[in-house]
Amino acid sequence: MQNFINHLKKYISLTSDEEQLLLSMVKTIPVKKKAYLLAEGQVCKANYFVEQGCLRLFFINDKGIEQITHFALENWWIADYMSLSMQVKSQFYIQAVEDSTIIAIERHQQEELFSKLPQLERYFRIMMQRAYAAAQMRVKFFHDYSKEESYRHFIAMFPEFVQRIPQYMLASYLGFTPEYLSELRRKV
Amino acid sequence: MQNFINHLKKYISLTSDEEQLLLSMVKTIPVKKKAYLLAEGQVCKANYFVEQGCLRLFFINDKGIEQITHFALENWWIADYMSLSMQVKSQFYIQAVEDSTIIAIERHQQEELFSKLPQLERYFRIMMQRAYAAAQMRVKFFHDYSKEESYRHFIAMFPEFVQRIPQYMLASYLGFTPEYLSELRRKV
Repeated sequence: MQNFINHLKKYISLTSDEEQLLLSMVKTIPVKKKAYLLAEGQVCKANYFVEQGCLRLFFINDKGIEQITHFALENWWIADYMSLSMQVKSQFYIQAVEDSTIIAIERHQQEELFSKLPQLERYFRIMMQRAYAAAQMRVKFFHDYSKEESYRHFIAMFPEFVQRIPQYMLASYLGFTPEYLSELRRKV
Repeated sequence: MQNFINHLKKYISLTSDEEQLLLSMVKTIPVKKKAYLLAEGQVCKANYFVEQGCLRLFFINDKGIEQITHFALENWWIADYMSLSMQVKSQFYIQAVEDSTIIAIERHQQEELFSKLPQLERYFRIMMQRAYAAAQMRVKFFHDYSKEESYRHFIAMFPEFVQRIPQYMLASYLGFTPEYLSELRRKV
């Protein structure tokens, strides 16, 4: 849980009693590579923090192809926030890309946790604002970048990540075919 | 300020003293149609709440064309959150689509406001989570919808909005040419 606690402490203070309380109310879930935390048609039950490993969020499009829309590495949160907030069925899957250790804050625990540790409101306000800020930039990139620019931008922003995930997943995230990505890699 | 206060009170409680304190620390800004709250190259100085009217967030692309990425109507917040959070220069413009009344929480006031009224952390955590949830769905739509489906989806979700904004702005938001949108409107 060390990544989790260290990450929180960058933004808020926690006494050791509060730390213990928090740890007693979250779940640590070991997730094997390719195991699912959410599948289409289910309601997203928790907000997931990657203590160690990597998760991906994807949907299956009309043509039956997996389209990845988000990744989460160590110290990132991931969920289908529409499904989690509104308790509606999800259109997404969340799956482990590697063997991972996940910390889950389950929805039914969330309000109790926030009322006992109100500083978590601040922590998640900052996390959500950051995620939304990145999402705003991403909308700009969607409109503004050619395919090749998207790829160059992504490898410049996340060089280690590009080494770590399978290339076909990177292609899916960028909206490329795997063949187009191979071509680009030879060229760039 | 009535929309602003009512909106807050849907999510958090405020005593009348707290309400007064809050109102003393925010700015009410009348913004004429076509006036700017932010221009490219400036640092975004505040988080803006639309008390009355409509704002748009856009950037100018390589071809010199305005590309709208977000709108905000009554009871919505809008800012360049990357610029606001990181205090970096913005790549966007925020402009009034109509004569509007805006409530601004300025960045230099924000931390004092949060420390005096910590329930605002909860309010903004909920606002940001909601905005991010919508952004996650939007990434799905970008990949999943044809141009015609994007248009149908948008008019189904926001019928009044479609009546209210100029058609060329709707075209820009959807990534269409105005000509393509006219064609679609005749057809749908």
